[in-house]
Amino acid sequence: MKYAFKVLLKDPVSAARLGKIYTPHGEVNTPVFMPVATQGSVKSLTPEMVRNMGAEMILVNTYHLYLRPGHSIINKFNGLHKFINWNAPILTDSGGFQIFSLSALRKITDDGVIFQSHIDGSRHYITPETAIEIQEALGSDIMMCLDECTPYPASFEEAEKSLELTVNWARRCKNIKKSNEQALFGIIQGGMYPELRRRAIEEICLNIGFDGYALGGLSVGEPKDIMMNTVKTAAPLLPEEKPRYVMGVGTPEDIVACVDYGIDMFDCVIPTRCARNGLLFTNHEKVVIKHARYKEDTSPPDETCDCYTCRNYSRAYLRHLFMAREILAMVLNTIHNVRHYMRLTEQIREAIKDGRYADFKKAFMERNINQGGYEN
Amino acid sequence: MKYAFKVLLKDPVSAARLGKIYTPHGEVNTPVFMPVATQGSVKSLTPEMVRNMGAEMILVNTYHLYLRPGHSIINKFNGLHKFINWNAPILTDSGGFQIFSLSALRKITDDGVIFQSHIDGSRHYITPETAIEIQEALGSDIMMCLDECTPYPASFEEAEKSLELTVNWARRCKNIKKSNEQALFGIIQGGMYPELRRRAIEEICLNIGFDGYALGGLSVGEPKDIMMNTVKTAAPLLPEEKPRYVMGVGTPEDIVACVDYGIDMFDCVIPTRCARNGLLFTNHEKVVIKHARYKEDTSPPDETCDCYTCRNYSRAYLRHLFMAREILAMVLNTIHNVRHYMRLTEQIREAIKDGRYADFKKAFMERNINQGGYEN
Repeated sequence: MKYAFKVLLKDPVSAARLGKIYTPHGEVNTPVFMPVATQGSVKSLTPEMVRNMGAEMILVNTYHLYLRPGHSIINKFNGLHKFINWNAPILTDSGGFQIFSLSALRKITDDGVIFQSHIDGSRHYITPETAIEIQEALGSDIMMCLDECTPYPASFEEAEKSLELTVNWARRCKNIKKSNEQALFGIIQGGMYPELRRRAIEEICLNIGFDGYALGGLSVGEPKDIMMNTVKTAAPLLPEEKPRYVMGVGTPEDIVACVDYGIDMFDCVIPTRCARNGLLFTNHEKVVIKHARYKEDTSPPDETCDCYTCRNYSRAYLRHLFMAREILAMVLNTIHNVRHYMRLTEQIREAIKDGRYADFKKAFMERNINQGGYEN
Repeated sequence: MKYAFKVLLKDPVSAARLGKIYTPHGEVNTPVFMPVATQGSVKSLTPEMVRNMGAEMILVNTYHLYLRPGHSIINKFNGLHKFINWNAPILTDSGGFQIFSLSALRKITDDGVIFQSHIDGSRHYITPETAIEIQEALGSDIMMCLDECTPYPASFEEAEKSLELTVNWARRCKNIKKSNEQALFGIIQGGMYPELRRRAIEEICLNIGFDGYALGGLSVGEPKDIMMNTVKTAAPLLPEEKPRYVMGVGTPEDIVACVDYGIDMFDCVIPTRCARNGLLFTNHEKVVIKHARYKEDTSPPDETCDCYTCRNYSRAYLRHLFMAREILAMVLNTIHNVRHYMRLTEQIREAIKDGRYADFKKAFMERNINQGGYEN
């Protein structure tokens, strides 16, 4: 099946919409949350576990796989899907974000970026062209253009310069792309300046044109209200007929809010990373599993959850495993948190389908208002 | 179902035998290998994974669960099976071995042993009576008597004194036992002295009498031939109608050899610990998965293996996960090694059933002779 996207239904009140992405490895219902398989595995889980809990697409980090084991090795296995045993859609990022956040040294020129590996200090040079070449070797269903992730804070002039570089790189990415099987998304930068976001959208969406669009440079340290305002003002300017993706976002509250603004796609390490740190998501409370109060607690993490962990284990056992540093603690916690996110997006899609997204959002926010953020 | 043991078939040539253990939580085919769930989980695996790869009984360490989370908490969950979600037979050791190998300080009197927790340095006092009380609170299917694990080397006099203590403790364990649901095994000590092993068997098996018998104090640093000779001379003296268990043993070669001497039960951390260290068992070679030679190896760890890992993953991917320190590396490696041990015991039982155990053993030893040991 070739790549395509259809908006199936629009919420009558908000900008929320129900959609479907078609890819060579299957369909994806939107709004979708993609669990992150940084190095080719959703940490601690088998692909079957991830699939069985309802994940339809995962995100894999190009930067990590480029450095180790190397995209050419993965290409010898006929691509990522075969190599990691995931027979469903995969989105790869461009590697840009990790180059800027993880690598030891980096130097940006108009042509590309030189950086040092965080693993062994080796020097590498990535251009828009090589970013596409690597992702084509990986064979993902959706590729991302190489962009410069504008930091926060950035002055208007800095953000403008960075935006121009990203637009230039996006054009080069589109020009070099060979694969007809793989979709390519453009990334909208522009910092927290509505005027620059508007200009980026004009360039990336109208003048160049891609299979979908991501709002980049969010969740990089800016206050939550500034991030949300950027999404709120930029999202309506994006073309209706293409998927809209907010990269690296976010908490359950972020997702519910962004869907309201018309966003279709999300990815974030929060559910998996929090799980490994012993923080379990529920709709009612935050469960910090190491707390002594759970020592004899016979109830599951979340009475309302249908995941394998909640169906079979008590908070007391999960606390025991966590305190004893058992690997199974990470497995069971991750199963719960990923399923929590999958249930959230299922509930979101149901609410849109029934034309009651505004009510859903209101009830969700009221229930969650006193829980605070999930960052850790 | 109440505890029972039946010998179903005896090999015409060797002392190998096919048997069945009946317990309140189901049947166990012998010879059996029990994966070790030290702290209440077979490290990195869900109980379903362990069950699906053919494990019929697991071993859980009383010492660890006594210290954390505490047997009284587990008892509130109606026992170990419910607490850890394992609905099949469980054997608990007495805690003695870990007290002698892990705890910080220990002082043995005729009455019991004082020791300090390896976790927090807290002081504890365990007697034969409390060892049974703890195991009854855990609700395992098979309990073990508290014994003193005679170290190696030990003089005849030391081994004799230690043996007498163990016999005395065994009698007290039997006297205090209340549960009719749980079986109790005696442990044969006596160091590497055939005369003392003989005397221990007379005392433990004939004068006291238990539901099964373990040869203890093996695999504690003695040369392999001394260990094997001890099993070879002691095993035929054990009552035919009760299961015979060699604790903490061993490598695949050890198991094949001990079955030949009439042993029915085994447990060992080798398959799980080696898996986490990246050593994969096969019948043909040792696969040290980090080796560069596997970097582009598209073959599974073992072409002849039917495990989930071998059916779905290449050595190259397993190497990648291991080098990247992904948790999934431990999960997939452990699945393979535990299944390898399960297949080994299945093959052993098939060979005994077909009256060809001697041939099986000969072929196995010839195939494995150049692989060396698996200790690491």
